[in-house]
Amino acid sequence: MRTIYWEDNAVKLIDQTLLPDEFKIITCRTVDELADAIKRLAVRGAPALEASGAYGVALACYERDFKDVDELKEHVKKRAELLASTRPTAVNLFYGIDRVLEVVLSGSDVEEIRKKALEEAERIAEEDVRRNKLMGKYGAELLEDGDTVLTYCNTGRLATVDYGTALGVIRSAVEQGKKIKVIACETRPLNQGSRLTCWELMQDGIDVTLITDNMVGIVMQRGMVDKVIVGADRIVRDAVFNKIGTYTVAIVAKEHNVPFYVAAPITTFDWEKTMDEVIIEERSKDELIYCHIKCRKTLIAPKDVKVFNPAFDVTPLKYVTALITEKGVIYPPYEENVPKFLKLGGSE
Amino acid sequence: MRTIYWEDNAVKLIDQTLLPDEFKIITCRTVDELADAIKRLAVRGAPALEASGAYGVALACYERDFKDVDELKEHVKKRAELLASTRPTAVNLFYGIDRVLEVVLSGSDVEEIRKKALEEAERIAEEDVRRNKLMGKYGAELLEDGDTVLTYCNTGRLATVDYGTALGVIRSAVEQGKKIKVIACETRPLNQGSRLTCWELMQDGIDVTLITDNMVGIVMQRGMVDKVIVGADRIVRDAVFNKIGTYTVAIVAKEHNVPFYVAAPITTFDWEKTMDEVIIEERSKDELIYCHIKCRKTLIAPKDVKVFNPAFDVTPLKYVTALITEKGVIYPPYEENVPKFLKLGGSE
Repeated sequence: MRTIYWEDNAVKLIDQTLLPDEFKIITCRTVDELADAIKRLAVRGAPALEASGAYGVALACYERDFKDVDELKEHVKKRAELLASTRPTAVNLFYGIDRVLEVVLSGSDVEEIRKKALEEAERIAEEDVRRNKLMGKYGAELLEDGDTVLTYCNTGRLATVDYGTALGVIRSAVEQGKKIKVIACETRPLNQGSRLTCWELMQDGIDVTLITDNMVGIVMQRGMVDKVIVGADRIVRDAVFNKIGTYTVAIVAKEHNVPFYVAAPITTFDWEKTMDEVIIEERSKDELIYCHIKCRKTLIAPKDVKVFNPAFDVTPLKYVTALITEKGVIYPPYEENVPKFLKLGGSE
Repeated sequence: MRTIYWEDNAVKLIDQTLLPDEFKIITCRTVDELADAIKRLAVRGAPALEASGAYGVALACYERDFKDVDELKEHVKKRAELLASTRPTAVNLFYGIDRVLEVVLSGSDVEEIRKKALEEAERIAEEDVRRNKLMGKYGAELLEDGDTVLTYCNTGRLATVDYGTALGVIRSAVEQGKKIKVIACETRPLNQGSRLTCWELMQDGIDVTLITDNMVGIVMQRGMVDKVIVGADRIVRDAVFNKIGTYTVAIVAKEHNVPFYVAAPITTFDWEKTMDEVIIEERSKDELIYCHIKCRKTLIAPKDVKVFNPAFDVTPLKYVTALITEKGVIYPPYEENVPKFLKLGGSE
C-alpha cells in the first residue's frame, strides 16, 4: 500500500495525522485540497513531498477544463507556486514540482500534456520506491547482526512513496536475515516517531522500543545503541537539515562515539547552498500548547505562553559518519566525495 | 501560597497534575491518600517530597486513635515505610520521613508525640523556604543582567514548599533588578516544564519561552542560551540524578560551552553513594502512549508498543560547572570541596 498515489483523476493519500488511532485515505480532487493536506502534515517526509509536488502539478492539469494550452500552462504555473509555498525547507518538494512543470510547459496540446504530466509524476513515484530499495541495500551493509539502531522522526514508507529511507535501511538489513532492534524517539511536538515509526515497524514485525526524545542521553550512556540512522530534508555543503531535534541526537551520539548516519536520496542534496541560506519553517504555537494534533482541548502549557517552534534544525556535517544514498555510501571528506556522487545523476 | 501545608489535621496540597488547566487543593486525611498523591505526582519535586515525607509521618500520628504510645509507634513505623516506597530516587523524601520519625520514636506520650511530630514537620517546611532563598541569593551572583537561562523540568515553588531551587535562583536575580529571560524545556513525558514552570514564571511576570526538549540543540547553536540551571533529586559522589533528559541537556551545554549549574539543598547530597548504587524509578507505559496525564483517550503511539520510561537520568559531575546550595556555590574539584560544605550541616 502506497502513502500517495493517483486514482480516478485524483491524488489519494493516507491521512497521517490520524495514525495510529485511525487509518483513513483522503482524496484530493483539487490542488487546494492537496496543498492543505501538505500544510497540515497529512502527508509529510521529504521523499513523499517530492511525489506530492509531482502529483500536484499533474492534478493541476486535470482539476478543471481549459479553453486552450496557454490557459492550462498559466493555470498550472500558479498552482505550482501554491504547492511550493506549502513547506519551505524540504528541497525534494520543489524538485518534484519542477520536473513535472517542465513536461507541462514543453507540451503543445491539452490532452497530451495531461497524459505526459501524469506519466512523469508516476515515474517519480516509481523512482522513489526503487531508489529507497537501493539505499536500503547499500545502507544495510553498515548494520551488523544484533545491532540496535536509534532512529528519529519517521523515515519509513509513510515518509516516502513506499519502503522508506532510514527505515528502508533497517528493513533491508532485516530482509537480509540480520536481527535488528530499533529504538524510536517520539519526535516532539508532532510525535511522528511514536505515531508513525512505531506503527510501521510493528506492522512489519520489527522489534521497536519507544522513548521520549530527552532519553537519547540515557540510552547511549547505557550502551543500548549501536548506530543512529536518520533521514534528511535537505543536505547542503556544510550541514543536514532534518526534523527538529536531529542536531541534539547528533551531539549525544558524538559524545558516546555512536556512528551517526543520514539516509537520503540524491534529490535531497542542494550542494550549491550553505546552511545560512536555507529558511527554517516555524510552525504554529498550538503544536506545543495542546496535548495532541487532534486534541485541541487539553492544554499542556498556559494558553498565552510564548513558544519557539522551528520545524527543522541544522546538523553540521562534522557530526555525520556517512551519508547513505541510492548511489552508494558517501564518507568524509564530503567536500570532495559528494560532488562525485552528484555527477552520477539524480534518479536512474 | 504554599505547595504543601498542614491545616485541620490534614495535609493539603496543590494537585499539580491538573495545572495549568485547573487550580485545585486536595486534602489528605490519611497517609494512604498522601502516598497516592505522591505516586501519581500530584506533589513532586525533591524538596516538596522532603516536606511531604515529614508531614506524612506527622499525619500518621493523627489519622487514627491509639490505645497507647507503643501502638502509635508501631503504626507510624509502618506508615513511614509506605511513604518511603512511593518514590525510590529522591533522597530528600527519606530525609523528611526520618527526621520526623526520630521525633516520634523518642517520645513517650501520644499527645506530646503528635505535637512534636507536627512541629518538626512544620520546621522542615520553614527551613525549605529559608534555604531556597539562601540558594537564590548565592546562585543569583552567577547570573548577569541580560542573561537568558535555560531550565528543565520544574524546580520552582511547586517543586518545593515555596520559592524554588533553580527557579529560586532566577527569582532572586530578578528581585535584584537583573533582567533575566528564561527558556523552559517542556520535559516529556509529563510536561512539568510546560505545565508548571511556564505557569509559575508567567504568574511572576518573568519572561519565559517554551521549547520542546529536542530543541536544546538549536537554541544553543544559535547562541540563545547564556546559562543552564537545573535542580537535582540526588547528588552522589560522581553524578547528579535529576529528571529524565537532564543528561542530554548537559551534553549539549558542554558541546556549546554553556555553563551548566545544579541548584539543590544540602539534603539532596548522598555523598556516601556512587551512581551505580541508586535505583532509577521506571514509570508506567501510559505516560508515553497517551497524549496527556489527564487524557487517556487519544493515543500518540500504538497501544501495544514496547516503551522504556525511566523517570530520572544520571549526569556525571564532570558536566557540572558548579553546585548551588544554601551554604554557597561549590566548584570543582567536588571530591575535595563538597565534603567541606557537607560539614557545615544540612539546614541551619
